[in-house]
Amino acid sequence: MTTIGILGGTGPAGRGVALRLASAGHDVVLGSRDAARAAEVAASLLVRGSGSITGASNADAALKELVVVATPWESTIETLKPLNDALANKIVISMVNALAKEGRELVPLLAPRGSVAAQIAFALPQSTVVGAFHHLPAGEMENLDSDLDADVVIFGDHAEARERVAALVNEMPGLRAVVAGSMSLAGAIESFTAVCISVNIRHRAHSYVKLAGLAD
Amino acid sequence: MTTIGILGGTGPAGRGVALRLASAGHDVVLGSRDAARAAEVAASLLVRGSGSITGASNADAALKELVVVATPWESTIETLKPLNDALANKIVISMVNALAKEGRELVPLLAPRGSVAAQIAFALPQSTVVGAFHHLPAGEMENLDSDLDADVVIFGDHAEARERVAALVNEMPGLRAVVAGSMSLAGAIESFTAVCISVNIRHRAHSYVKLAGLAD
Repeated sequence: MTTIGILGGTGPAGRGVALRLASAGHDVVLGSRDAARAAEVAASLLVRGSGSITGASNADAALKELVVVATPWESTIETLKPLNDALANKIVISMVNALAKEGRELVPLLAPRGSVAAQIAFALPQSTVVGAFHHLPAGEMENLDSDLDADVVIFGDHAEARERVAALVNEMPGLRAVVAGSMSLAGAIESFTAVCISVNIRHRAHSYVKLAGLAD
Repeated sequence: MTTIGILGGTGPAGRGVALRLASAGHDVVLGSRDAARAAEVAASLLVRGSGSITGASNADAALKELVVVATPWESTIETLKPLNDALANKIVISMVNALAKEGRELVPLLAPRGSVAAQIAFALPQSTVVGAFHHLPAGEMENLDSDLDADVVIFGDHAEARERVAALVNEMPGLRAVVAGSMSLAGAIESFTAVCISVNIRHRAHSYVKLAGLAD
């Protein structure tokens, strides 16, 4: 069992990850700028299994053993900067995508340092940043009865941290970890989220990425 | 039946697309800087079905009804510029990715105009550019006995052209077309190829993208 904080965890993306982490037996703290709102959202999520979800401020969520960043991209760095010391010597998982609406599509934005994960790595020089959870359909993630069978594409420069995150992902129901490689792939993996969501809007679907042809 | 030219068609990527287009009944001309080499490669590809593959110069391949660009990214614009008039009023399909080797990974490069497809669209103002065939495993594409069941993510700004390419893709054995949207998604789709190939190197696999959860 690991204690896991999710910064900006009350949005659809954070909620689904929280639910499936808790269902794998972990104690999850949803962080938010508004701790009362976080407690409310946490109480609304029905965990199966031995884990738990509670709500807190982002600062309190940042104190946990492992921390997931699920904030909107616009406020990510602003949220993280004051948490630099709390996040030191920890694995910080970025699931943030920089996207913009353009008509009926979501399009990827070029983050100032090539990817949001790279921006986070520069903002948190004492932490080990790993990217994961970018391409997942929020609604399916939050519904434990959906027959989700999605791949989580993982990247980062620290091999051991990537493997730690991959092991965590493989414990979560409906998800398989696929380690892709280094931070050089961050922009490609983040921006592909725009493709997934645009496909979903266009085809009125809740699709997700599977990498077929990999051994289980 | 459509006549289709494949510029730079003698490389692994072009060969697989040629074989599966010909197997869907189309007459394919592999173009190359070296027409004799193209004829040699064409003769080595064993088509099943009523289509054909022959070899020619890139200039001759560009005369066909529909043209696929399968050149290396470094020489793409140089190859296309002199073919501007031959390619006017045609659909030009880009399957080009700008990638570089970095250790054991392939990493995406930022093309000067955001994507290779956008570079092509600017170089060929009289043509209609559609992107397709980026994420496919070359070996499996070239082996008609592989149990390939891959998605081809399609993009472009011209809806009718996208649908025309999608229909073509759906005729090809082992492939399903998924229209993603506009050229704003080009960079994301092209760069994800680096992720697919890096996953394959790391996991010693020949994986490919499926978008699960879409209706057939």
